[in-house]
Amino acid sequence: MKRNARAFGINRRVLLSTAVLLSTPPLLRIASTLAQDASKLLTAWNDGPAKQAITEFVHATTDQSSPKFVQSEERIATFDQDGTLWVEHPMYTQVVYCFERVPAVVAQKPELKDREPYKTVLSGDHEAMAKLSLPDLEEILFATLTGMSVEVFETEARKWIETAKHSRWKRLYTDLTYQPMVELLQYLRANGYRTYIVTGGGQDFVRVYSQKVYGIPPEQVVGTAGGTKYGYDKDGKPFLTKEPKLLLNDNDAGKPEGIHLEIGRRPRAAFGNSTGDRQMLEYTGAGDGARLMMLVLHDDAQREYEYGPARGLPDTKVGTFTQQLYDEAMKDGWTVISMKNDWKRIFAFD
Amino acid sequence: MKRNARAFGINRRVLLSTAVLLSTPPLLRIASTLAQDASKLLTAWNDGPAKQAITEFVHATTDQSSPKFVQSEERIATFDQDGTLWVEHPMYTQVVYCFERVPAVVAQKPELKDREPYKTVLSGDHEAMAKLSLPDLEEILFATLTGMSVEVFETEARKWIETAKHSRWKRLYTDLTYQPMVELLQYLRANGYRTYIVTGGGQDFVRVYSQKVYGIPPEQVVGTAGGTKYGYDKDGKPFLTKEPKLLLNDNDAGKPEGIHLEIGRRPRAAFGNSTGDRQMLEYTGAGDGARLMMLVLHDDAQREYEYGPARGLPDTKVGTFTQQLYDEAMKDGWTVISMKNDWKRIFAFD
Repeated sequence: MKRNARAFGINRRVLLSTAVLLSTPPLLRIASTLAQDASKLLTAWNDGPAKQAITEFVHATTDQSSPKFVQSEERIATFDQDGTLWVEHPMYTQVVYCFERVPAVVAQKPELKDREPYKTVLSGDHEAMAKLSLPDLEEILFATLTGMSVEVFETEARKWIETAKHSRWKRLYTDLTYQPMVELLQYLRANGYRTYIVTGGGQDFVRVYSQKVYGIPPEQVVGTAGGTKYGYDKDGKPFLTKEPKLLLNDNDAGKPEGIHLEIGRRPRAAFGNSTGDRQMLEYTGAGDGARLMMLVLHDDAQREYEYGPARGLPDTKVGTFTQQLYDEAMKDGWTVISMKNDWKRIFAFD
Repeated sequence: MKRNARAFGINRRVLLSTAVLLSTPPLLRIASTLAQDASKLLTAWNDGPAKQAITEFVHATTDQSSPKFVQSEERIATFDQDGTLWVEHPMYTQVVYCFERVPAVVAQKPELKDREPYKTVLSGDHEAMAKLSLPDLEEILFATLTGMSVEVFETEARKWIETAKHSRWKRLYTDLTYQPMVELLQYLRANGYRTYIVTGGGQDFVRVYSQKVYGIPPEQVVGTAGGTKYGYDKDGKPFLTKEPKLLLNDNDAGKPEGIHLEIGRRPRAAFGNSTGDRQMLEYTGAGDGARLMMLVLHDDAQREYEYGPARGLPDTKVGTFTQQLYDEAMKDGWTVISMKNDWKRIFAFD
């Protein structure tokens, strides 16, 4: 099938026009022609089992003569974000955003200044912040992510994401996307797959930059989501206010639930990196026909980070990849991507 | 702009091939060429203000030289279903489904047979059923729409929708879609709009037939939705169970909330027929640039039904269109579609 792809690639321009002149419906033919040629996109991947699993899956599901062919409307691929598409250590980017929003929240409500957990966050003491309890963390998240209109939140989040920098690389967080995964998104799309983000992070937060950073439009971002309340401003203009009411916790079993809620189709391919992605991969794998399930293992301390605790890697609370998950992957035929071995480059700037 | 559209229409086949040979990116050109020609699709509409509002809006937002041009990714049109796309009288189709599922539920749990509200529904006494209280109705809905796997529900609902018939026309409910609205969906899609259903009905129910009946895929159906619970069958295969837990009540203010949750963009055009659509139309109209808001008024007792109570039409609890809503439409420049005057045909079989 690879040979076919190359043959198609020889003169794409001619094929494009010919396809349209000869065929109905022309749009489908063009899409299919573009598709076959796209494995060239995977330049940041080393040749090896991970890259091979990807290209074999794509060929099998897009070649009309294949018994595993998948109709284009069913070509859905879902991606976790933190740790799968971009760096999540030492802390999830959105949590950093929430911490950095605290001064603005306290400026509006000065009575919070001497109250916990605000006091600890304002102290800037990272060690103390790392020890905050889950209820404390939730209070910070609700205080910084809700209570404002959808538009105000979007403006604040956009301003931050366009300027805030990661402590290690001193670069924008949006520069810290994994180049092999960005290529994979493009490769799948070139093959008629619609790429979705299915993230434990906030749906509204990720939508602010997903189009620009990943080429994924807002309607293809599924994430943790709260309710919104409809109201009118003083001129009678309606707007939605973000409410501190959780509708969907898009982690663990919440991922299949979110996929059913917002997509309504079972993915053909799913990509994750932690125990929070387990159910999404199981759910994907439970469908019939060809399916692709992959997990990114952070085993590259030099170029990025190493954490597991699978395979004896250091344990972590942020993006935990347990040995149990690793064993399930092996048992169920999921592919584990070794950052160290499978990725030629980690970032676009490498 | 109308003239332009006709000029493009003269020889579409030639234009299609020429566009591809001359241009990059060809896909965009083809889409745009198809677009201009599509007002021919609106054959079930009489010439008049409603049809004119539609074609003017589409021309203004798809003509690149227009100050109101809208990028294709922003072309989102949302449609209420019951009473807007298909018949909702004498009762919402999904409620009929729930009533007709009661015998199957009781067969599984015989202890319900002599309990209300099941007893009344089993009696088949339509007058008594019409008088059921809201909590009684909710009990019937939960009992018939939840507690089973997503797949089992889908199978049951599909079997029913493919055979059940409307009491007046003795035809499948899916034959009772309004031909002018089906044409409008096609016309908008031919112009690069993505068409969404935003319904107070159950999201999972509508998804069963939306692709076949409206050409709208599951991921473009937003509706009232419950939670789902992740679990495993005896062979360890995961599945989702529909839970009696309401996540989104996609009526009234729930419509903008559902749009924000599942689409994440403000629609450019919105279509409804009752007070339950008011906030969706307001929210759509609150965006900048060209927007199209339309309400179907059921004023045709002969060919379909007449109900309001707007404009002195008979009052109803099913699809209420109040005079207040009518006044808001006039004040805000929404277009009211008169079934009687604006629709040449109501159904495809007319």
